[in-house]
Amino acid sequence: MSTTTATFSGVVPPVVTPLSPAGEVDRGSLERLVHRQLAAGVDGLFVLGSSGETVFLTDAQRDVAIDVVVGATAGAVPVVAGAIEPTTPRVMERVRACERLGADAVVVTAPFYAIVGPHEIRRHLTAVAAGTHLPVLAYDIPVCVGRKLSNDLLLSLAQDGLLAGVKDSSGDDVAFRQLLLALEDAGVQGFSALTGHEVVVDGMLLAGADGAVPGLGNVDPDGYVRLHRACAEGDWATARKEQERLVRLFRIVDAADPATTAGATRGVGAFKTALHLLGVIDSPTVSLPMRAYDDDEIARVRMQLDLAGLTVHA
Amino acid sequence: MSTTTATFSGVVPPVVTPLSPAGEVDRGSLERLVHRQLAAGVDGLFVLGSSGETVFLTDAQRDVAIDVVVGATAGAVPVVAGAIEPTTPRVMERVRACERLGADAVVVTAPFYAIVGPHEIRRHLTAVAAGTHLPVLAYDIPVCVGRKLSNDLLLSLAQDGLLAGVKDSSGDDVAFRQLLLALEDAGVQGFSALTGHEVVVDGMLLAGADGAVPGLGNVDPDGYVRLHRACAEGDWATARKEQERLVRLFRIVDAADPATTAGATRGVGAFKTALHLLGVIDSPTVSLPMRAYDDDEIARVRMQLDLAGLTVHA
Amino acid sequence: MSTTTATFSGVVPPVVTPLSPAGEVDRGSLERLVHRQLAAGVDGLFVLGSSGETVFLTDAQRDVAIDVVVGATAGAVPVVAGAIEPTTPRVMERVRACERLGADAVVVTAPFYAIVGPHEIRRHLTAVAAGTHLPVLAYDIPVCVGRKLSNDLLLSLAQDGLLAGVKDSSGDDVAFRQLLLALEDAGVQGFSALTGHEVVVDGMLLAGADGAVPGLGNVDPDGYVRLHRACAEGDWATARKEQERLVRLFRIVDAADPATTAGATRGVGAFKTALHLLGVIDSPTVSLPMRAYDDDEIARVRMQLDLAGLTVHA
Amino acid sequence: MSTTTATFSGVVPPVVTPLSPAGEVDRGSLERLVHRQLAAGVDGLFVLGSSGETVFLTDAQRDVAIDVVVGATAGAVPVVAGAIEPTTPRVMERVRACERLGADAVVVTAPFYAIVGPHEIRRHLTAVAAGTHLPVLAYDIPVCVGRKLSNDLLLSLAQDGLLAGVKDSSGDDVAFRQLLLALEDAGVQGFSALTGHEVVVDGMLLAGADGAVPGLGNVDPDGYVRLHRACAEGDWATARKEQERLVRLFRIVDAADPATTAGATRGVGAFKTALHLLGVIDSPTVSLPMRAYDDDEIARVRMQLDLAGLTVHA
Repeated sequence: MSTTTATFSGVVPPVVTPLSPAGEVDRGSLERLVHRQLAAGVDGLFVLGSSGETVFLTDAQRDVAIDVVVGATAGAVPVVAGAIEPTTPRVMERVRACERLGADAVVVTAPFYAIVGPHEIRRHLTAVAAGTHLPVLAYDIPVCVGRKLSNDLLLSLAQDGLLAGVKDSSGDDVAFRQLLLALEDAGVQGFSALTGHEVVVDGMLLAGADGAVPGLGNVDPDGYVRLHRACAEGDWATARKEQERLVRLFRIVDAADPATTAGATRGVGAFKTALHLLGVIDSPTVSLPMRAYDDDEIARVRMQLDLAGLTVHA
Repeated sequence: MSTTTATFSGVVPPVVTPLSPAGEVDRGSLERLVHRQLAAGVDGLFVLGSSGETVFLTDAQRDVAIDVVVGATAGAVPVVAGAIEPTTPRVMERVRACERLGADAVVVTAPFYAIVGPHEIRRHLTAVAAGTHLPVLAYDIPVCVGRKLSNDLLLSLAQDGLLAGVKDSSGDDVAFRQLLLALEDAGVQGFSALTGHEVVVDGMLLAGADGAVPGLGNVDPDGYVRLHRACAEGDWATARKEQERLVRLFRIVDAADPATTAGATRGVGAFKTALHLLGVIDSPTVSLPMRAYDDDEIARVRMQLDLAGLTVHA
Repeated sequence: MSTTTATFSGVVPPVVTPLSPAGEVDRGSLERLVHRQLAAGVDGLFVLGSSGETVFLTDAQRDVAIDVVVGATAGAVPVVAGAIEPTTPRVMERVRACERLGADAVVVTAPFYAIVGPHEIRRHLTAVAAGTHLPVLAYDIPVCVGRKLSNDLLLSLAQDGLLAGVKDSSGDDVAFRQLLLALEDAGVQGFSALTGHEVVVDGMLLAGADGAVPGLGNVDPDGYVRLHRACAEGDWATARKEQERLVRLFRIVDAADPATTAGATRGVGAFKTALHLLGVIDSPTVSLPMRAYDDDEIARVRMQLDLAGLTVHA
Repeated sequence: MSTTTATFSGVVPPVVTPLSPAGEVDRGSLERLVHRQLAAGVDGLFVLGSSGETVFLTDAQRDVAIDVVVGATAGAVPVVAGAIEPTTPRVMERVRACERLGADAVVVTAPFYAIVGPHEIRRHLTAVAAGTHLPVLAYDIPVCVGRKLSNDLLLSLAQDGLLAGVKDSSGDDVAFRQLLLALEDAGVQGFSALTGHEVVVDGMLLAGADGAVPGLGNVDPDGYVRLHRACAEGDWATARKEQERLVRLFRIVDAADPATTAGATRGVGAFKTALHLLGVIDSPTVSLPMRAYDDDEIARVRMQLDLAGLTVHA
């Protein structure tokens, strides 16, 4: 566990955005989802991340999602909001919306679609940070944007006070470990290094991460809160045991037929299907071009929920 | 040259979107750019492609760009418009704008940022085509979206009448050549196979492409019209000579310092710098996180314009 | 067609290495293959390229292959031989074998497996060229080695007299076109720019390539000789027609079940299956981990041979 | 820590292959290196891995390296040897050498250079395992071979008794964690899951890995033995502290100028430079196309050794 006093730390699940069958943001379901998170004791919420279908939603839908999460959270924990668009001018439009709607921080990726190099990425993050009073967290997700944020970049932006943290979804724990020590050696204070990988939270907290942003936390926030607490107490045997239960639960992302589905459908689709089975959200609807799960796929999700000891709504 | 009767064919430049120094779409410059294209005899115009900074512009800016190009073209040639967003719901928002603003067709890529496979890509293009009365052209640009459109997919969507054509910016001329014959063998009529690579237009037209979408056509539309005419007349020696002049002119994309710029800045930045030097647009301003060219870089663009025989505005 | 006097030009098929069912190099079949190539009028032969299973063969097998091809060619045309290994010391071992066995030139890729950058690639090619009296051709095949040879590198090595040519299997015809003009503008003489893509030979010769290294030329050398001749005579209509027949014939690489085979098996396997059907080689045996074609797959190869007008051995 | 009884476990450093300035394997230095490893208490040695310049060495050099390591180890710990070649027939040649020279197991990657898919990879590993009495460890190193070994493949080969373990250098700790539990759930016994990432050994052992193959262990085997011991005793605080010292020491791989060196040079080059400074090996010579470190680079390596508390040879 980190010894620094990061602003954003602990368990910060990236909440899904429940949709009605007609494709509208389902306010009631989203409120229930938030209340369940808060009841579990999470330390923050991340709205409009990849799990939140951020790039599938129109701006109007996004605004509703932020509004509902901020409202339902009611200041209990910080709400960080994705401002995920390909380029600076478009990100800034979303940053303005996040400011207006009361988010506590914004989360920004490297540019995507646009072909950029390290200089453009630095200019992008710098311009966004300079353009808002909100804290900015970098979102390192090369599988989506095609490029990794270098440790050199993250460190220098952290030192310059332009970044409040990073959500690391790079899958590159080697680089993340090196970043953690580089931040410490540079004496950077208050920077939040959060792992986005729900299956290695114990190891990353052991390594000094400030917290986790687990997509699977949508489904089992209690498990992640227990996991985090065990780590905080240095009870690594308990932490590992809880983590292993969650690693197995994470197999819900293998429920969809791999011959006809890919990443987005398998992740968000599984989380929503599980939340629907658990009675938290009214519909498992996902945005196009993803598709709904069929009966066999739903049955496989249900089986994993059972194995993990989660009570499935009849 | 193709023997089919494609709806969109010949020279269809992807026009840049001129911006004022303050970052607003410069209507007057865009009108001048369009009029220059029409005077050169182009066969169509593509607004809001990659060269048009489509992912850098806000929706409001995009609407202005379409409005100006449609208005300035005044029906003289077809106007195809990019509806380039990561997922289906967001693309459909832009398709509605294209419909409302009078575009003659929409151009759509595979999903990006979202992690998708072949089934999601097919569902995406199918849903877009089903959701509009406008012809849909697929935009195959793996360097931006991270995945190539397969020939199997393109062929079957063409056969089903869901796609009106493809703009191939894949750099994979081998696959493009195979697609051309597969379309012919399947008896597909009216499908527009357009190459997006400005430096191999002669070879692609020899291979049977219906036309080209040359970013460099922003700078030298007359050259591309001459090149296309020579190919249409089977005068391949003349075509090659004109193409070679244009290949050399394309070296303007190497004008920016490679140590501090990447693809987007080098392409769009060069086109805008050249158009500014040529007196067509009032400012070479590009969107963040791209940057303006410095004096040395501008001088290198100017030199290539001189070598290509283009008159530079004093 | 190029106007320079390149040493290696025209049609230079990369011959397969026929194997007995027990996996030994089949000297008799390889000799027949070479004689058929020479009878067709090819301008050179490339032994131990990717089509020649170069990375599947032991050094002993490779030596036999070179020995047979050099012997059967008997000086009628130049024989270029692959020296394809991951790093410089290993390449040099193969270069020594090529020298000893009488090859007329060696073909060398960028390093692979080893993680290298531009400086290491330059050092590699420079060291190889400095270490042999044989002409060195660079083999640009990013799909196999994971990195593309830059035009800057190729041009400077050509200017320094270290490279005699390049076999471009990059699929990046845009870069290849730019290279052709860069070589011309730099006044480089005697450099052989050969395309490795059998389906765009007409376009690449129109663009100024010196020749082609068509894997499919194993199967139909007469077709490629006719294609080259038409291009040389400026009869582009005839060239295109011949090329299109060959593009269709190239569909043999789609004969193997895509669910259970990948690139190598689909390419080399198809060529060998076709040559076996044509009676040129005694067995279609391929090296592990590739597999033999089943009856359905063989039937699909046979069908394409029929459609292309090639007489299939009963 | 794993509760299974894996054959290969604990600290198994991948030893470098010391070379004389003339490029010959330096037997004396390699023996000293091995003796130092054994004195530190390592649990095994890996000869001819990536750190051992396996793809840079000729077969004759490789044979010497195995011979020396096996001889100097004298049965004290198991010696696993790389049989790293692009395809099955070539791997089998190396497997025969490993058998002949007395290695205790062979380490094999997915095919490389050759374009293969999952079926060919499975056929490859299966054929190798079937062709030797030695235990086979899979080496998952996508950064070198361009493809990752899937958990499905590893699990099924483990269940079939064809694989004795895996060295995971994929950087994908998420997949590795899932593999660990999948093996446990499938009841696989005696399979060695080893991490190849020297900076996350604590976290991976917490997750249940059987051991580590740390390249940095060449330089500081005592540190890795202490780290492993702390993990085995469940003293995670001590483990983390030792790991953090080693993460900082790993900064020697940043000593070489990034503008003129890439991965191989930065890794192997740093290890050899450090070992030379420590007086373990007589020369830091690396194979072409890597290059020697200059004075500034050597000074940076020396500084990190000092900071890590390692005594540098005057």
